[in-house]
Amino acid sequence: MKRRDFFKKFSSIALLGSIPVVLKANNYKPEYNWKMVTTWPKNFPGLGTGAEYLAELIQKLSGGRIKVTVYGAGELVPAFEIFDAVSSGVAELGHGSAYYWKGKNDIFQFFSTVPFGMTANEMNAWLYKGGGLKLWEQAYFDFNLVPMAAGNTGVQMGGWFNKEINSLSDLKGLKMRIPGLGGEVLRRAGGTPVNLPGGELFTALKTGTIDATEWVNPYNDLAFGLHKAAKYYYYPGWHEPGTTLECFINKNKFAELPEDLKEIVKGAAKIANLDMLCEYISRNNDALQILQNKHKVEIRPYPKEVLEELYNISKTVVKELSLKNNFAKEVYNSYTSFQEKTKNWNDISIKAYLDI
Amino acid sequence: MKRRDFFKKFSSIALLGSIPVVLKANNYKPEYNWKMVTTWPKNFPGLGTGAEYLAELIQKLSGGRIKVTVYGAGELVPAFEIFDAVSSGVAELGHGSAYYWKGKNDIFQFFSTVPFGMTANEMNAWLYKGGGLKLWEQAYFDFNLVPMAAGNTGVQMGGWFNKEINSLSDLKGLKMRIPGLGGEVLRRAGGTPVNLPGGELFTALKTGTIDATEWVNPYNDLAFGLHKAAKYYYYPGWHEPGTTLECFINKNKFAELPEDLKEIVKGAAKIANLDMLCEYISRNNDALQILQNKHKVEIRPYPKEVLEELYNISKTVVKELSLKNNFAKEVYNSYTSFQEKTKNWNDISIKAYLDI
Repeated sequence: MKRRDFFKKFSSIALLGSIPVVLKANNYKPEYNWKMVTTWPKNFPGLGTGAEYLAELIQKLSGGRIKVTVYGAGELVPAFEIFDAVSSGVAELGHGSAYYWKGKNDIFQFFSTVPFGMTANEMNAWLYKGGGLKLWEQAYFDFNLVPMAAGNTGVQMGGWFNKEINSLSDLKGLKMRIPGLGGEVLRRAGGTPVNLPGGELFTALKTGTIDATEWVNPYNDLAFGLHKAAKYYYYPGWHEPGTTLECFINKNKFAELPEDLKEIVKGAAKIANLDMLCEYISRNNDALQILQNKHKVEIRPYPKEVLEELYNISKTVVKELSLKNNFAKEVYNSYTSFQEKTKNWNDISIKAYLDI
Repeated sequence: MKRRDFFKKFSSIALLGSIPVVLKANNYKPEYNWKMVTTWPKNFPGLGTGAEYLAELIQKLSGGRIKVTVYGAGELVPAFEIFDAVSSGVAELGHGSAYYWKGKNDIFQFFSTVPFGMTANEMNAWLYKGGGLKLWEQAYFDFNLVPMAAGNTGVQMGGWFNKEINSLSDLKGLKMRIPGLGGEVLRRAGGTPVNLPGGELFTALKTGTIDATEWVNPYNDLAFGLHKAAKYYYYPGWHEPGTTLECFINKNKFAELPEDLKEIVKGAAKIANLDMLCEYISRNNDALQILQNKHKVEIRPYPKEVLEELYNISKTVVKELSLKNNFAKEVYNSYTSFQEKTKNWNDISIKAYLDI
């Protein structure tokens, strides 16, 4: 999923939702009136609602001392200007995902997801216990931002296809909408990655302009209606195995808070992080049932040899991110060494258990 | 893992740790002086430290308005009297796991773990999004307690063995320390479940009084030293695939809190829940490396036919919990139907991804 263009398709929803929500305070008058700008259309399922949930949490936990008003993409600033907006203090909080800002530094993608990277639980363990969050804080420091993990989609789906993928040769010439590192991997496997706004996907898929597109997961994809334009729904989402959503805060605004409110903001982000993954686990099941049983979508695994080839290419593509400078190398080494040792434990715990 | 006797082995640690920790308050004077009683020795790795972390969080998030003093097992009340102690108001908070209280109602085990039950992520999704926590609150209501999930061990290990398990027939007569539902499953498979205090395990295993014992996971097991008494370390922990730890609060004491402090206590439990799983994921890797590389422990998978037989027996044993009354049936139905639909999604997401 690259959500670059969600807001185009959902601009009408965004307009409907443009009246700022003011939540009831409990014991205190607002001491801080904060704005949260987001890359999502207002209340977009899972992601936009996750931003709202975080804003609500901060208000509730602070007894109303911090009031947070959430703005959907384009309401206060365009989706892909929220990083700069919070950096410069136009808004206090931003809600998005780190790979959107790869134009600033492509190493940021490690704080979001990379092809054949870590799962949601591994990402959280790396961020909170393996030094990942410290590196992320370091990476955003120069941009006057304090980052926090604030959600996770879990393993995404491979995408919607009108062409069967039975072997490696089926990737040759495949016109697929898949941005970012995933697109680069597909290109090196012989495919033709295409960049299209979300709002044009349905027609492009329906008319054969593209053969395939990745999107998010059953919960989001069902709402988007792509099952009406494609025959096959492939899994797993090798290009986004556990995408971390973020909340970042203007560093000066954060520094102004007393200690307990700092803890509350950081704590609220952790709760929102856990909550979004639970939401997706719960909702994806229901959506998958509807796609399978009602819409008769054909769910298919990527063939083993295809995944193996994509895996090998991905390792090269991801490693290239480490070559720019010492900090890039440090992030890459921290990420990959944590993933490697976690695999060792996963193999005999969660993997072995799910394989029964 | 049944932790019934951790505190016996670790009683000396418990004594050393018996001076209550007082954390610095920030903006407020303590308005609530609370006691947390636990089933763990003071600062027992992962579990006892998880209780301390939760206490600290409540203090920090409340700006010191709630002060929480943690008592290890036996310091204020014995480990297995904390449920009654908090119920009657001797202490405000308790930290343990719901299956310890199966003597009150054996349906409580669903809020902890059951053989071949849900993984950590599935448990959280069920509790927070699938109605599980509401049922748990209902279950503890009559005991004057408000329960919250406050940690998870992830998939545990199968246990330590001095006898090879190559086929179903190797379970016949197997003397294994495995309490609770897991023990009942082993009994029906022809084994001899044995109940022994934690402090006697090492000698019993070393002298051949028992052939095997389950314990927790590499992080806890390495500290416990069982690798010096057993040859084989089997996986996965089919009997405890994602054990939820709990924090329960005296209902009257909870009701006295203003709304923002209620949110803070509930929020702190969620943060502690996520944190413990991350801690175990991170620590288990390191411990596993030491067990494998330094201590040359032989890590072995349970044979497929053994797991299949244990799976089938478990489904029967777990179903029997539902037969007592309508509420038991409701909990069983909620748990099993959520697990079933989650499996559908898991198969094409996390399982498919880990299988690459």
